[in-house]
Amino acid sequence: MSARWGWTEAHRAQKVGIVGATGAVGVELATLLVQAGHPAERIACLARRESTLDAAGVKLRVAPTPAQAADLRAHDLVFLCTPSEISLELGPALAQAGVRTIDLSSALRMRPDVPLVVPEINGRELARAPRLVANPNCTTAIACMPLAVIARMAGLEEVVVVSYQAASGAGAAGLDALRDETRQACGLSPEGGRASPFPATLALNVIPAVAKVGPDGISGEEQKIADETRRILDLPGLAVEATTARVPVERCHSVAVHLRTARNLALSDLLSELRRAPGIEVVDDPHGPRPRECAGRDEVFVGRVRAGARGGRALAYFAVGDQLRKGAALNALQIAAGMPPAV
Amino acid sequence: MSARWGWTEAHRAQKVGIVGATGAVGVELATLLVQAGHPAERIACLARRESTLDAAGVKLRVAPTPAQAADLRAHDLVFLCTPSEISLELGPALAQAGVRTIDLSSALRMRPDVPLVVPEINGRELARAPRLVANPNCTTAIACMPLAVIARMAGLEEVVVVSYQAASGAGAAGLDALRDETRQACGLSPEGGRASPFPATLALNVIPAVAKVGPDGISGEEQKIADETRRILDLPGLAVEATTARVPVERCHSVAVHLRTARNLALSDLLSELRRAPGIEVVDDPHGPRPRECAGRDEVFVGRVRAGARGGRALAYFAVGDQLRKGAALNALQIAAGMPPAV
Repeated sequence: MSARWGWTEAHRAQKVGIVGATGAVGVELATLLVQAGHPAERIACLARRESTLDAAGVKLRVAPTPAQAADLRAHDLVFLCTPSEISLELGPALAQAGVRTIDLSSALRMRPDVPLVVPEINGRELARAPRLVANPNCTTAIACMPLAVIARMAGLEEVVVVSYQAASGAGAAGLDALRDETRQACGLSPEGGRASPFPATLALNVIPAVAKVGPDGISGEEQKIADETRRILDLPGLAVEATTARVPVERCHSVAVHLRTARNLALSDLLSELRRAPGIEVVDDPHGPRPRECAGRDEVFVGRVRAGARGGRALAYFAVGDQLRKGAALNALQIAAGMPPAV
Repeated sequence: MSARWGWTEAHRAQKVGIVGATGAVGVELATLLVQAGHPAERIACLARRESTLDAAGVKLRVAPTPAQAADLRAHDLVFLCTPSEISLELGPALAQAGVRTIDLSSALRMRPDVPLVVPEINGRELARAPRLVANPNCTTAIACMPLAVIARMAGLEEVVVVSYQAASGAGAAGLDALRDETRQACGLSPEGGRASPFPATLALNVIPAVAKVGPDGISGEEQKIADETRRILDLPGLAVEATTARVPVERCHSVAVHLRTARNLALSDLLSELRRAPGIEVVDDPHGPRPRECAGRDEVFVGRVRAGARGGRALAYFAVGDQLRKGAALNALQIAAGMPPAV
């Protein structure tokens, strides 16, 4: 069997646990593991309640999460698809116990002792064999893929990221809410009065802040983009500013990025480099990339690469990525693939 | 009768022609005129084919547009809701014949002898009693309303505008396409295989370019935003850069604006000034303003006003406006209201 996503026989020999397996990211991760050839009997799915889940056609049993981190120590590798408060407790405890742990929450992303990794960008962090690694914010991971290529070629002076984020970024409940509301907009009554995670109707609307807005007027998502971009690119002084908005799209986050490089950069050189970059696909359609067409795909799609009309060393691009794949589960699997297997 | 939108008895005495009356903007304009108390018998609706239209409950007859500008000279005031090639022909000819003409196409907006006017910003241009006035691009008008307040208070160094544009920005056909596609997404067959004006499915999608993309990678809409913003604000050297995208919203364009002022500006001073500014409503909801809630409203709604995380004199806001109102028909009516009536 080939090593899809770098997932080799040695990786497949590991006992893997997914905590929070029934959420949108957990299911995606189980699916990717099955597709990477990981034997179902070595995937332990854990969630609050007992159930089953479908991972690429394979039915996996979901066991109730043990209350103690100690009970998770039987695994070689654990993915935490859990709320921050649970990750904060389980992550360091598991790592301490010798379990390689990848946390997909935001709890540990800014801790200096926990590497924050997008393998194509700073996969070198994994060479130090860390026990605990943080997976970045979905919008940040997608925005950073082309940004890292630009930073490497010409440096970065400042970055503005404006997002168009999909409903499923808020998990299965977000997707359900959008689908219910869309049916209502078509005069069909929704299947049930399911609670929406959004502060307003999302169907046929734009909600111009993702997560809570702080006293400085910056949303939680915007703060993550700024903080995590600096960390992933290893540019602690980089000026990053964002507007994040939720749009009525089922899956895939899009970002319009306007930036200034530190040095001159020829567009043709940049395009050649982007075409060569792993994990990136350059889209030549002048009206692309578009989220609907990128759903379920691994790559970050980049288009509309152009010189910024502000002049100087301004540059702009539009990028789309499946936030459940490169923005979450796929990136986490790639992190795990980059760690030397335990067995 | 009060002078809604500044439309006085003297304005109501005029014979008004609307050319291209059956398009989305034409119907909106006829509706506003009726709502402003303009007598139906002094509104001549003209379009390619004979028909009728409903303007705020009043049925107006639509006559076929005369082939010659000469035949339109009987009107005191003409609104051209026509494609650029027709405006280019009719606009100057009508003005020459002494008919006060307001053109809503993009044909004449950059002609130095034709003022491009947003009355709250550069209504002073109307004091010179021009015969021909251009109405700006819808996204530009909405973005510029708060921008003008900021420019007046602290100057502007550079502006980045990223848009979330509604389907009806492409007229009735755009709205029909979005509705058909949304019904399809809900498993309902659309009412007919109506042709879409968009290059891809818009429902549950984002199309990251509005209008054609030029060889420099900049879309027609992005170029208009840059050129027209400089002209409306009378800042010919201003650096303006945009990304324009179509989103699955029926009505109201939204813009995320990230800018740098020339001088320091306290946020509290800016907010007080925005609250006082005519035509602007400040939204305190941290997750607003949102297009769905602003449809059919006159004001440009501004929220998320904050210091830019890029530091220095960076500033950001989110604005929403009904592109058929302030972005088109309402602004055109306000222009007409600012011109001394002919009779």
